[in-house]
Amino acid sequence: MWGDLARIGDEGARGYRRFAWTPVDLALRAWFRDQAQARGMACERDRNGNEWAWWGAPGPGAVVTGSHLDSVPGGGAFDGPLGVVSAFLAVDLLRERGVVPARPIAVVSFTDEEGARFGVACVGSRLLTGLLAPDAARALRDADGVTLAEAMRAAGADPAALGRDEEALGRIGAFVELHIEQGRGLVDLGAPVGVASAIWPHGRWRCTFHGTADHAGTTRLADRHDPMPPFASTVLSAREAAGRLGALATFGKVRVDPNGTNAIPSRVDAWLDGRAPDAVTVRELVAEVGRAAEAAASGHGVRVEVVEESWTPVVEFGGELRDRVAAALGGVPALPTGAGHDAGILSPYAPAAMLFVRNPTGVSHSPAEHAGTADCVAGVHALATVLSDLACD
Amino acid sequence: MWGDLARIGDEGARGYRRFAWTPVDLALRAWFRDQAQARGMACERDRNGNEWAWWGAPGPGAVVTGSHLDSVPGGGAFDGPLGVVSAFLAVDLLRERGVVPARPIAVVSFTDEEGARFGVACVGSRLLTGLLAPDAARALRDADGVTLAEAMRAAGADPAALGRDEEALGRIGAFVELHIEQGRGLVDLGAPVGVASAIWPHGRWRCTFHGTADHAGTTRLADRHDPMPPFASTVLSAREAAGRLGALATFGKVRVDPNGTNAIPSRVDAWLDGRAPDAVTVRELVAEVGRAAEAAASGHGVRVEVVEESWTPVVEFGGELRDRVAAALGGVPALPTGAGHDAGILSPYAPAAMLFVRNPTGVSHSPAEHAGTADCVAGVHALATVLSDLACD
Repeated sequence: MWGDLARIGDEGARGYRRFAWTPVDLALRAWFRDQAQARGMACERDRNGNEWAWWGAPGPGAVVTGSHLDSVPGGGAFDGPLGVVSAFLAVDLLRERGVVPARPIAVVSFTDEEGARFGVACVGSRLLTGLLAPDAARALRDADGVTLAEAMRAAGADPAALGRDEEALGRIGAFVELHIEQGRGLVDLGAPVGVASAIWPHGRWRCTFHGTADHAGTTRLADRHDPMPPFASTVLSAREAAGRLGALATFGKVRVDPNGTNAIPSRVDAWLDGRAPDAVTVRELVAEVGRAAEAAASGHGVRVEVVEESWTPVVEFGGELRDRVAAALGGVPALPTGAGHDAGILSPYAPAAMLFVRNPTGVSHSPAEHAGTADCVAGVHALATVLSDLACD
Repeated sequence: MWGDLARIGDEGARGYRRFAWTPVDLALRAWFRDQAQARGMACERDRNGNEWAWWGAPGPGAVVTGSHLDSVPGGGAFDGPLGVVSAFLAVDLLRERGVVPARPIAVVSFTDEEGARFGVACVGSRLLTGLLAPDAARALRDADGVTLAEAMRAAGADPAALGRDEEALGRIGAFVELHIEQGRGLVDLGAPVGVASAIWPHGRWRCTFHGTADHAGTTRLADRHDPMPPFASTVLSAREAAGRLGALATFGKVRVDPNGTNAIPSRVDAWLDGRAPDAVTVRELVAEVGRAAEAAASGHGVRVEVVEESWTPVVEFGGELRDRVAAALGGVPALPTGAGHDAGILSPYAPAAMLFVRNPTGVSHSPAEHAGTADCVAGVHALATVLSDLACD
């Protein structure tokens, strides 16, 4: 099962590249349908491109599990796929045990969770819930200028159908997403499986430094409007502020124009990923980075713009479902995460919970991302226990 | 004449993009041949892809003028083309005046002067002189991984023929390259035209920061091996050192891998362009930048490599030819430049000189690059005077 999946979008030492609505994505969707068919599960794609496989008749009160199959560029094998594979294996385990659910169970694969192609994360669940407006989604562009609408049409999907899906949403009685942990919390606690307590608030801000293109060999330092030094100062300021505030700040994506060795850039675009345990701290971080960017830019005759591209408030996985999941598992530890997930998007609209599987190195979004086989098996068993508890009276 | 040329590779507000052996380059070469044919000048391409147009039979002792037609990404209209256009117009002017040269006059357009596609500048003149080994040239790769050999074949040219060309080189009695000035030296001197005294030594160094890809939302600052902050520190150190040493240092090209908003990069490649009036200063600059990069990288658990990709020693346009050119023009000012040119590459192998045309803003390698019409006309007249002086006894 892993074998067929592992080959799709594999770029060897460079890791996985599984972007939404590409041929690789279509191969992932075909794999999902094959898995559903092999289990006699009815398969359907909802209006927003999320794939569903049903054990039992689709309908309200369903116990839903799953995650996503897409990846960041240079991603690992587990972030997303572990939740989908574990969902199918948990179904197998329940059937082996002769469990007969009182409510339908669905396995879901949400589309474009990472946002690697169009810059917005959790597109499938955001559209499903109505958090992302369909017009805004259709107009998103990838690095080649292709819109999401064009990409969907090229992949044989209909962008006109995008939008809040009352029917699909109304069927979710509970959503439980299993995911590889993206830190070393469970390592420190010595536990193979845990439940999520909260997702930190987080966002993305595009910082654009507008300078003046000029010849690197002939323009005196004093005459330059070079956007690169103020960008560099901003990177260092962000790191310093994050450390001081107990936040996380990352510049992982940079675009330099024209990006020629002997040309002073006309423009540098850099994306700040900011997160913290609470929204006030993230806002303080972004404000400090903005002030540092302004100060550095003005010293170089460079103009700076900071634009918020996304913002996700804190998600507290509280209440009944989390307690029930933890109880079913005999009191496994609860821990927060800095990473966004479809479960976080869904949680205001339907009861949602997450299970984490231990990650020995904590490394994620990297080809080195890994979970041990025994821990993955423990994850499947934990998920099966939770599904059985929720789907049977 | 400018009109047809101006349309080729024009990306509007983004400037010109004229990379070697692309369809745009082939259109530039067709323009060159059309200009030659319109003047009854025999046209030939040498083994290294440089285009020649002959007034008189090709042979030793020729007076050669010209420049290049390719551009940096986001380049201006004048850097390169002004020298080729002025060369053809100077031929027109000499013919109008009834000048009958005692020696052949050739107009040349050197291939891939900017090195924007394959990373090495002055490829055409370096191959012609043997400074660049043909095997090394053929193996150069562009950003898409296409080799120079593949690019040449795709453009209908034969990469097997590359290499030092004794015949073409042996015919150059003198080379005079006219070029837009890439600084404000002539503005300060109040002169429309000047001659080059020297080209600063300069080089390109690739600085690679090897970190560890990881999730931007879940990896504690202390656990990161993020290559971005040490790169940022290096940019600031380079700028500081350049100012102190009287040198120029530019990071104009950056490549981040995997370049995802929520991924700590596994690697940042950044190219340092370093120049100064003398080689010792450039070497000191690069050594300081290397030490600063090492220090910054080690603080982040990041490994750094600095690799010299090109080095061009100082070129002094001294001796007989420069004095003769200056005298023919009635003592125009002489001034140095920080920019590399094909004339600099040729100068150890054949007498070479340069004329500069005033640039009111000093801006170059930018769509804003500009020279006034009156100054361009003065440049053509000066070039015609020089060619007449050199080609007639």
